[in-house]
Amino acid sequence: MKSYPKEQIQAYKEKNKQTGRLLIKCPDQPGIVSSVTQFLHKNEANIIESNQYTTDPQDGKFFMRIEFESSKLPEAEEELRNDFGSIADTFDMEWSLKGAYDVKKTAIFVSKELHCLRELLLEWQSGDLIADIKMVVSNHEDCKELVESFGLPFFHIPSNKDIRKQVEEKQLKLLKDYDIDLIVLARYMQILTPDFVAAHPFKIINIHHSFLPAFIGANPHKRAYDRGVKLIGATSHYVTNDLDEGPIIEQDIVRVDHRDSVNDLKKMGRSVERIVLARGVKWDLEDRLIVHENKTIVF
Amino acid sequence: MKSYPKEQIQAYKEKNKQTGRLLIKCPDQPGIVSSVTQFLHKNEANIIESNQYTTDPQDGKFFMRIEFESSKLPEAEEELRNDFGSIADTFDMEWSLKGAYDVKKTAIFVSKELHCLRELLLEWQSGDLIADIKMVVSNHEDCKELVESFGLPFFHIPSNKDIRKQVEEKQLKLLKDYDIDLIVLARYMQILTPDFVAAHPFKIINIHHSFLPAFIGANPHKRAYDRGVKLIGATSHYVTNDLDEGPIIEQDIVRVDHRDSVNDLKKMGRSVERIVLARGVKWDLEDRLIVHENKTIVF
Amino acid sequence: MKSYPKEQIQAYKEKNKQTGRLLIKCPDQPGIVSSVTQFLHKNEANIIESNQYTTDPQDGKFFMRIEFESSKLPEAEEELRNDFGSIADTFDMEWSLKGAYDVKKTAIFVSKELHCLRELLLEWQSGDLIADIKMVVSNHEDCKELVESFGLPFFHIPSNKDIRKQVEEKQLKLLKDYDIDLIVLARYMQILTPDFVAAHPFKIINIHHSFLPAFIGANPHKRAYDRGVKLIGATSHYVTNDLDEGPIIEQDIVRVDHRDSVNDLKKMGRSVERIVLARGVKWDLEDRLIVHENKTIVF
Amino acid sequence: MKSYPKEQIQAYKEKNKQTGRLLIKCPDQPGIVSSVTQFLHKNEANIIESNQYTTDPQDGKFFMRIEFESSKLPEAEEELRNDFGSIADTFDMEWSLKGAYDVKKTAIFVSKELHCLRELLLEWQSGDLIADIKMVVSNHEDCKELVESFGLPFFHIPSNKDIRKQVEEKQLKLLKDYDIDLIVLARYMQILTPDFVAAHPFKIINIHHSFLPAFIGANPHKRAYDRGVKLIGATSHYVTNDLDEGPIIEQDIVRVDHRDSVNDLKKMGRSVERIVLARGVKWDLEDRLIVHENKTIVF
Repeated sequence: MKSYPKEQIQAYKEKNKQTGRLLIKCPDQPGIVSSVTQFLHKNEANIIESNQYTTDPQDGKFFMRIEFESSKLPEAEEELRNDFGSIADTFDMEWSLKGAYDVKKTAIFVSKELHCLRELLLEWQSGDLIADIKMVVSNHEDCKELVESFGLPFFHIPSNKDIRKQVEEKQLKLLKDYDIDLIVLARYMQILTPDFVAAHPFKIINIHHSFLPAFIGANPHKRAYDRGVKLIGATSHYVTNDLDEGPIIEQDIVRVDHRDSVNDLKKMGRSVERIVLARGVKWDLEDRLIVHENKTIVF
Repeated sequence: MKSYPKEQIQAYKEKNKQTGRLLIKCPDQPGIVSSVTQFLHKNEANIIESNQYTTDPQDGKFFMRIEFESSKLPEAEEELRNDFGSIADTFDMEWSLKGAYDVKKTAIFVSKELHCLRELLLEWQSGDLIADIKMVVSNHEDCKELVESFGLPFFHIPSNKDIRKQVEEKQLKLLKDYDIDLIVLARYMQILTPDFVAAHPFKIINIHHSFLPAFIGANPHKRAYDRGVKLIGATSHYVTNDLDEGPIIEQDIVRVDHRDSVNDLKKMGRSVERIVLARGVKWDLEDRLIVHENKTIVF
Repeated sequence: MKSYPKEQIQAYKEKNKQTGRLLIKCPDQPGIVSSVTQFLHKNEANIIESNQYTTDPQDGKFFMRIEFESSKLPEAEEELRNDFGSIADTFDMEWSLKGAYDVKKTAIFVSKELHCLRELLLEWQSGDLIADIKMVVSNHEDCKELVESFGLPFFHIPSNKDIRKQVEEKQLKLLKDYDIDLIVLARYMQILTPDFVAAHPFKIINIHHSFLPAFIGANPHKRAYDRGVKLIGATSHYVTNDLDEGPIIEQDIVRVDHRDSVNDLKKMGRSVERIVLARGVKWDLEDRLIVHENKTIVF
Repeated sequence: MKSYPKEQIQAYKEKNKQTGRLLIKCPDQPGIVSSVTQFLHKNEANIIESNQYTTDPQDGKFFMRIEFESSKLPEAEEELRNDFGSIADTFDMEWSLKGAYDVKKTAIFVSKELHCLRELLLEWQSGDLIADIKMVVSNHEDCKELVESFGLPFFHIPSNKDIRKQVEEKQLKLLKDYDIDLIVLARYMQILTPDFVAAHPFKIINIHHSFLPAFIGANPHKRAYDRGVKLIGATSHYVTNDLDEGPIIEQDIVRVDHRDSVNDLKKMGRSVERIVLARGVKWDLEDRLIVHENKTIVF
């Protein structure tokens, strides 16, 4: 069992070795699509999936994601990027061009509630979440045995607000040592410092256990219960310095009723939290997300 | 077409002439159900549907709704009530016992947006919403023709904050003249005074065009757009003096994405608003709602 | 009220007078997108929305829908089409290029159940369904008053299986006289002959009151009740000669439970039927549907 | 980690040691509820949750589930049953009276696809599924390591149609040795013989990977793909001798679109299968299900 995902990731890389993904964000203007598709055509690329969006027909922003196959990949990846640079300059683009085979190195942070971690590990194990999970980090030891049963490294870094700086130093060192691309806060109950967040712009995904912006902050289920809502939700979002205010990636809800206690809400919330987080993480792993003005474009 | 609903309501009354509904709220204690069912048994009542709920096994509140058929109805309705009074006293109950044939006299208030009014009228016309609609009241004339095409009285009472008192006097007189049981605010954009609200405790249902408590107040769709949410919602609730803070009856949501403009959110919101309002109104009309501590029990 | 939608449609046409829609279906091959976007670029067109899909990276079919604004529209619509013809020939395309301002002339067929008709009329009246409704045709007179209250022509054509041929002749004449683009069967309970269907390929949309292919044929709600399903559904689809076997456009479901009688299922079904039909009709009106191998691509 | 669920189950038993559940099915007639509640009253029982349902006001079947707390439990459980027997006889009841502390001994059967097994194990491990899992049985060894990492016994019984009889003899012996109450077929791909099924009436729950009765039988996702459906589903049901025809417990669906391949449908189906199965299993474990005429009442 333990080596299964590694083999799966290898098979995925092999299968997608000629698959590239191009993400673009720029001021809208005539000729963008035409230039991009000519570039791909010239590079023997076959478009597999293409999505675009313009904020506003006039004076708007243009966004595009193209997944393509090119016989030049993976060898000429760097060359393709250089080549595309001049088009990007012409249209003043923010952009990235990467191989789908470049599976993201991922770290999962978790505290005592393990349902989100479990979901991610199982989706990963069954090959439905394509990540190169390098570590699970926790301020508690509750998940140590679980993580290690999946053959993954577990790091226990006890934390409290007095030693936050030292804790984050340890964490940052780990993230750097393993060259982490994506950090998933799978019910990690410690606040991150502005420095930590600033070091990973739109590379940290959190799950909040409410339908934001309702019940921002602590104890959302208790407050949902007190308000007598008929639906509870969960929100996955990129972390910015404003608590629970970062760009929303995905939300979903579950129906509750008057019979449900605060504990029932927590229990039912767990189902929707783990699904909303896993969905958001998958979209990031597949480079389907572009952030614009504190919102996400999901392609 | 015009007389159709009246005939339908007559047929409904005839079909349900022996159907009664008993609603109970009291401190939980042993023997309640036993006493109630003995009372019904003694009165030749056959239970059609029964629901109960206790807030807490110890020291809680007990709620019950029973729909029954009794050959003593409708003639002995008053007698049944008198008879039940002594049980009610024993257990310190708030309660009501009514005939299902006693269709609620209903007033609909509306302003310029007509989608909720239309839904209610169509559901009523097709016999899926059993109300005795006595009037539609508006501060505008946009819906006059629509309302009258359904054979219903329309009252135009222009309004603004300077003449609120006079407006409400006119409205209150109408409500009294027609002996109205239920007021539905189907996107009525005027604020009601505390006096008006206090005169109709848990008899006014409003639709709010957001998933409360998110986006309480004005312009929820604009604010939902700005926040970049992935779902928008609607909430039907009883009106109390705290704006958008009354007991929630029903909520639902619809998925949106980055392509949707504020106008799209409004358009998509209309679908869910009309459904959430109609559902809440039906439950009230069927006496399925009990209010407790600013929440609703939905039986 | 009556003239409202006509003004709305006029306003819509005015607002979209430079908006065009290009739909393409052809064998996948390199260079398609590049050629199309160059064509648009050359014609001063700004892409508003673009969707594409390929059935299979190798040896597949390619589908595309582009909505664009061009200052050459509406005057040069014919010229644009001629111009595009040579690209279309190169890539062996099935295609259409039309103005969004070319609102589809629509006929609605209905029998005795009116919920779907009502939904379409209300969505149309509130400007959320952009159709030029030319007529409502029925084999009964139940909806006559309703239809005429919306200011629309109503045609009563009684029908039974013995006079099917004569009935369809009358209907075909009407459809031809009004140059109808789209026929909506809004719970029209007569079977159409193969000739009638063949004369309107993928121009007839039907609503079936089950989640196809479950409960194909008659009495789906009775059969759903007997089977004890926990969800019931509805399906809108294009009509082909195989009963209930045409390309599915949209489906949705609603939860039911053991307490629901066959009549309850019918009632709950009505809510989902009208929504599923309206959604499908809107997509067709916006040219969002491409049929391929008895399936629909929904852009 | 391994001993966690056992402690949890112990804690659950301790917490619910005075909680009983009464299930009743009998011909409807006056006086049932009254007699039952008097019985409970006499036995110092406090009703926590009560549900009832009558198929038809006249000449129907009556169903009831009551969850109660009584200081006489668990000691006088047998005495309560004896006591209730005379009421049951009077009303010709099928019934059961059990302690909630009597956690069901459960066996899970699985083949090569493990997503449903994983869901059950994780829900069980987090205390959201209260079962006493005695064994996991498989005709393959794929899940051995997974099962044992949860501290549970795994039995590998290879199977094929030639040795079905011997295989079932082994299985039946295991089920008998461990006194199993509930068998869950979590994607177990072997057909059970009529004898095996007959030995466990309404004690075997299966998950079918379609929205029954659509796509009954093999390869539902391939057939759903070919038909071009817009939703796919899953169904949990009790197993009877008619393949996929047993009483439906729960169903749910997930939206798909034209871009989704057969493999995508399988992947998306897995999410809904595991949830639909887990929900059905929980309801059985909580004695919320009564079977009547090939349907389930879910209380």
